[in-house]
Amino acid sequence: MPTDPTKPLEAKPEAAPTRRATVAAMEEILFAPQPVLDHGFIRIVDYMGDDNAIVQAARVSYGKGTKQAREDRALIRYLMRARHTSPFEMCEIKLHVKLPVFVARQWIRHRTASVNEYSARYSVVEDEFYLPRAEHLAAQATDNRQGRGEALGPEEARRVLATLRDDAALTYGHYQEMLNRDAAGNPRDPARKGLARELARMNLTLGVYTEWYWKIDLHNLFHFLSLRADPHAQYEIRAYAEVMLDILRRWVPEATAAFEEYVLGGAKLSKSALEVTRKLLAGEDVQQAETGLSPREWRELMAALGRPVTP
Amino acid sequence: MPTDPTKPLEAKPEAAPTRRATVAAMEEILFAPQPVLDHGFIRIVDYMGDDNAIVQAARVSYGKGTKQAREDRALIRYLMRARHTSPFEMCEIKLHVKLPVFVARQWIRHRTASVNEYSARYSVVEDEFYLPRAEHLAAQATDNRQGRGEALGPEEARRVLATLRDDAALTYGHYQEMLNRDAAGNPRDPARKGLARELARMNLTLGVYTEWYWKIDLHNLFHFLSLRADPHAQYEIRAYAEVMLDILRRWVPEATAAFEEYVLGGAKLSKSALEVTRKLLAGEDVQQAETGLSPREWRELMAALGRPVTP
Amino acid sequence: MPTDPTKPLEAKPEAAPTRRATVAAMEEILFAPQPVLDHGFIRIVDYMGDDNAIVQAARVSYGKGTKQAREDRALIRYLMRARHTSPFEMCEIKLHVKLPVFVARQWIRHRTASVNEYSARYSVVEDEFYLPRAEHLAAQATDNRQGRGEALGPEEARRVLATLRDDAALTYGHYQEMLNRDAAGNPRDPARKGLARELARMNLTLGVYTEWYWKIDLHNLFHFLSLRADPHAQYEIRAYAEVMLDILRRWVPEATAAFEEYVLGGAKLSKSALEVTRKLLAGEDVQQAETGLSPREWRELMAALGRPVTP
Amino acid sequence: MPTDPTKPLEAKPEAAPTRRATVAAMEEILFAPQPVLDHGFIRIVDYMGDDNAIVQAARVSYGKGTKQAREDRALIRYLMRARHTSPFEMCEIKLHVKLPVFVARQWIRHRTASVNEYSARYSVVEDEFYLPRAEHLAAQATDNRQGRGEALGPEEARRVLATLRDDAALTYGHYQEMLNRDAAGNPRDPARKGLARELARMNLTLGVYTEWYWKIDLHNLFHFLSLRADPHAQYEIRAYAEVMLDILRRWVPEATAAFEEYVLGGAKLSKSALEVTRKLLAGEDVQQAETGLSPREWRELMAALGRPVTP
Repeated sequence: MPTDPTKPLEAKPEAAPTRRATVAAMEEILFAPQPVLDHGFIRIVDYMGDDNAIVQAARVSYGKGTKQAREDRALIRYLMRARHTSPFEMCEIKLHVKLPVFVARQWIRHRTASVNEYSARYSVVEDEFYLPRAEHLAAQATDNRQGRGEALGPEEARRVLATLRDDAALTYGHYQEMLNRDAAGNPRDPARKGLARELARMNLTLGVYTEWYWKIDLHNLFHFLSLRADPHAQYEIRAYAEVMLDILRRWVPEATAAFEEYVLGGAKLSKSALEVTRKLLAGEDVQQAETGLSPREWRELMAALGRPVTP
Repeated sequence: MPTDPTKPLEAKPEAAPTRRATVAAMEEILFAPQPVLDHGFIRIVDYMGDDNAIVQAARVSYGKGTKQAREDRALIRYLMRARHTSPFEMCEIKLHVKLPVFVARQWIRHRTASVNEYSARYSVVEDEFYLPRAEHLAAQATDNRQGRGEALGPEEARRVLATLRDDAALTYGHYQEMLNRDAAGNPRDPARKGLARELARMNLTLGVYTEWYWKIDLHNLFHFLSLRADPHAQYEIRAYAEVMLDILRRWVPEATAAFEEYVLGGAKLSKSALEVTRKLLAGEDVQQAETGLSPREWRELMAALGRPVTP
Repeated sequence: MPTDPTKPLEAKPEAAPTRRATVAAMEEILFAPQPVLDHGFIRIVDYMGDDNAIVQAARVSYGKGTKQAREDRALIRYLMRARHTSPFEMCEIKLHVKLPVFVARQWIRHRTASVNEYSARYSVVEDEFYLPRAEHLAAQATDNRQGRGEALGPEEARRVLATLRDDAALTYGHYQEMLNRDAAGNPRDPARKGLARELARMNLTLGVYTEWYWKIDLHNLFHFLSLRADPHAQYEIRAYAEVMLDILRRWVPEATAAFEEYVLGGAKLSKSALEVTRKLLAGEDVQQAETGLSPREWRELMAALGRPVTP
Repeated sequence: MPTDPTKPLEAKPEAAPTRRATVAAMEEILFAPQPVLDHGFIRIVDYMGDDNAIVQAARVSYGKGTKQAREDRALIRYLMRARHTSPFEMCEIKLHVKLPVFVARQWIRHRTASVNEYSARYSVVEDEFYLPRAEHLAAQATDNRQGRGEALGPEEARRVLATLRDDAALTYGHYQEMLNRDAAGNPRDPARKGLARELARMNLTLGVYTEWYWKIDLHNLFHFLSLRADPHAQYEIRAYAEVMLDILRRWVPEATAAFEEYVLGGAKLSKSALEVTRKLLAGEDVQQAETGLSPREWRELMAALGRPVTP
């Protein structure tokens, strides 16, 4: 492990007093690694602001009037609903995350965060690779091009796991060999120079773990979660998104409740879907073919409206 | 005043304990408005991180080795010098700023911050306008197209100030009249409707004060200051930059010292300027005309090198 | 006028051949100022990409399979619907816009564009101020804190217009006087120095026109329009948004149609609103008070579903 | 290959006329893959603007005066020198790049670009892995923690290459086996389901090639190149940076020349380094120990000034 999560650098022996916004439920779990997948974790390193900070920022924008007119909870819900996103940018969180490289590659596509990643040019990568649990070893989905379908049978799952484990061990062994480095970090063969770290890392597989500090504001974190806590997201990144949602429920409970009400739990209806809904409410009989909706859109609309799909 | 800085919303009666990074010198001045120009201020609303947070983030990136090899101060200086900017993004600050609109228009060009500005659609703007002190009433510069030259004479300065004051009063009076609103906020004439705020504001001048919450990370704040604490920046925005520099010296003293050493106090030499410097060091006689430097570049290089300008 | 729109700098006497994506309907209106408000305009200066460029970028991401499986139009609609936004970032447009400063202040809050604005530090501002047409002179809305209500009566409107016109003329006259500059640009009084431009501009009102080059990608332009072509946006910025929508219908007709179907013409239903809709479809009688929706949310849901509001 | 570079999707059989800015030297090489490393390439897919577009944008900002006062070339050099970066944002380029994943991981850290990457969730990854040429197989540097030192001896290089080649082949073979897919893309074993692509990819090494469309403005591309065309950058990403520099010399020759003069070819001197330079010019004898410069800074300053390092 590049950094030892049991002795975090940031952990203070004692608390110091501050007049800044402080959230007791966050102080409880500060610095403690919360496990994700087989070797990963998320640790809260720092946070700025709370539900009240959102309210204050909104009141700078919308002036005195809002003080009388709305209580805090209603104001936060209004901001979320009306997409007044800037007050949510006034909260910030910094996480230390350990995650497999193929997950990191999806994650980093979100450009509105600050990142300090462990560098395999500066340091030797540790011998930790993601191995899915058997129930997550799924076949390619047949109904969409992107996701997973049913679980593999036990025999196929067993072989896949063995392959992943063996290839990780083999390529990592060769990584150390090319570096001319034994398990204790000493040169294997004094006659060899050892390949540069920046090249040797090329032999590691995409299942290897990396680490980073990741700092993001609450608005952009909500956006991240709206995509990555979604059922269409790959299971492995969703596992991290779920832990982050739990953290948000501690940190900014009102904002998170509004997010779950208006974004995660809601549905966007297209112009045509709205028309279909209006006709259905008026008691009309509507067939997919006449709506302009594709078969897939039709199925999704019927599911959202809690109606059986009539083909 | 839209918000009353003597009773800040965020002020806590008592401090709470936290295990997060805390900077005593910042706690002292938290929430207190620091005056800028005639009616403006900067107040620290919140901060995240400290010098040590920069070091920690760098050590995640560069691994264990950095722990032994460098002490913190040297590491921060190295990061600044080598433009490893991401660890500086790990600190964040949130300020409440009151500033004239024409300054706000320059300021907002920096896109890497979060902003909640007082909205003149939601609330009535207060009667506060920037009036420069006599010593800041300068003539147009004659040697560059952009800046200020000598101070105006006392008579011209007096007339300019009177004009600015009178026009601010006149246009603000008409603003209230169009809103159909007296000084106490009541309708002037019950028979009139009063113009919408979003239109009436059009009659205010660019010297009127506005307010915002402004949140930015340390790397981007350094970039802001490298442009706005520069002598070429307009005096009025520089006044805010100077106060921010003072805040940074409290908050992250090592990072700020490195910024002053490597960025603010340094100089960028072009390829041709480097060649000139080498020739001068070798004792050669160099004339501007033969260097590829423009006359202005030549003057600036001579000034940076502490040499008299020989035309 | 700082730049003369009848002789645009970019206008080429003749066309040149290119193998890049080219849109005939855009070439027709390239460089021509399209009027907005009383003195404003939008001119297309350049564009990159077309509907096909979105499809190509999506096919790099989603691979060969998409070629067979979907025709272009369906693919674009799928991308919009599923919020696969990155292919829309592959188109870019550059506009020259002339607009009042109070509109520019709203506009600039969108941080994901590149801007070059006319500088009142470098040049003298021209004598052009926005004066609303009588039908746009509305009273403050009584049902929300932000917008406009009914039109003013003719007498009040006449007085407001006279005030706006007179104050613009007065403050502009004093601006020139402080600059010591007559209408022809010559010094008024050779004995005076004239105030620096960067200070004198402070006396101009927020209705004065400015200009900028504004460059943005299609994804971020759609986001801008989702907020600024919305009925809650101020009329004056909406006028610009409408012209941009017309430009988009020429430039990327399929993407714009998808945007109007899934974003502009659609509706986002919250978790609770979805539950209400399901109950209504099941024939249940639902009262606002029992739903968790606020009265305003209830009204908006009933409007979206095309049902009368039963209080 | 996911997309066939010999038959690019964007290639037009014939040119179309446009009145937009067009660069003949770019039209010549449009769409043609320019080889980088062993299997990589860069292809220009589209571009917007030219040197003149920078000048126009600057003239919108700085007004009429600039037309008379400066010719275009001098204006571009002034903008680069004075860090007036926004006019450079007015040019945009879109590239199709094929590159190894470990290079893509460095590249993507630049957040100010738009990206559409080939997705290993949607499609099967092809069998192409980076294998360095023998002269690039270097040992770990001994004088800094990050880079490469001397080349490996021929025997060690031979073994490293064999390892990289064999492990790539082995892990790719297992990737296909887990997918239950033969070289022709057919199922190997009809009785097996085949692992989902999003999981199987985990077994590929970081040397595997990926592809993306990458779109960026000129200012941010210059910033990218200032870091990635630097001798401290890893050779493999520098190889791409060099090809991009060549493209820029065709596209915006004046801006690129200014970039090479003021950024790439220049040097930033710290406050202390400036003081040392002044003393040296005044004929003083200066020793490193008394300067506040670290030994490494001292060496770098002496190199920049063309002086022997006196320890």
